[in-house]
Amino acid sequence: MLNYQLDKTFAALADPARRAIVERLVQGPATVSELARPLPMSLPAAMLHLKVLEDSGLVTSQKVGRVRTCRIDPKMLSQAERWVAQRRQMWERNLDRLGAWLEEGKPEDEK
Amino acid sequence: MLNYQLDKTFAALADPARRAIVERLVQGPATVSELARPLPMSLPAAMLHLKVLEDSGLVTSQKVGRVRTCRIDPKMLSQAERWVAQRRQMWERNLDRLGAWLEEGKPEDEK
Repeated sequence: MLNYQLDKTFAALADPARRAIVERLVQGPATVSELARPLPMSLPAAMLHLKVLEDSGLVTSQKVGRVRTCRIDPKMLSQAERWVAQRRQMWERNLDRLGAWLEEGKPEDEK
Repeated sequence: MLNYQLDKTFAALADPARRAIVERLVQGPATVSELARPLPMSLPAAMLHLKVLEDSGLVTSQKVGRVRTCRIDPKMLSQAERWVAQRRQMWERNLDRLGAWLEEGKPEDEK
């Protein structure tokens, strides 16, 4: 379940137009047309990107009357961040251990 | 350039087999066959995933004799982490501002 969600989150972030939408939405909610306007594409194309973001759980939307307003759902953003941060930390810890091991192996006068 | 790199990094992370390879490599270098063994797929299929990881810059490899050894390159991992972390922080700052604004708007006796 978590794995499947991460697949969708990382895939959603793997596109500059979708990252631009996320960039805009972290500033606050926006309507579909506000999100589409700065993008170098048609409204239907922008809406397809929004759909990918909604499927990934990164974005939620609500329609009131004729206006659909989109918001960031920070849960998936935090989950993706945590996955990457933990792997980077594991890599660093491993590097520290290697450093300590090399240090231990040195002759006394080189320490 | 950076955008293009992020596309590839996030796309590379959007697959459970490739994330499993990253999980293994943050523990230290490994040969191609060591990486492929635990994966539920053929060696050629695992090698295709490794190629995607190498193209993304997340993994580098070096062949000595007949053995190819793979390593994490932490630069792209850090870059992906930074992108997500900064967006999450922007979202939180925006939420704080909204909270402060709502607080200011309250009548004196409700503060």
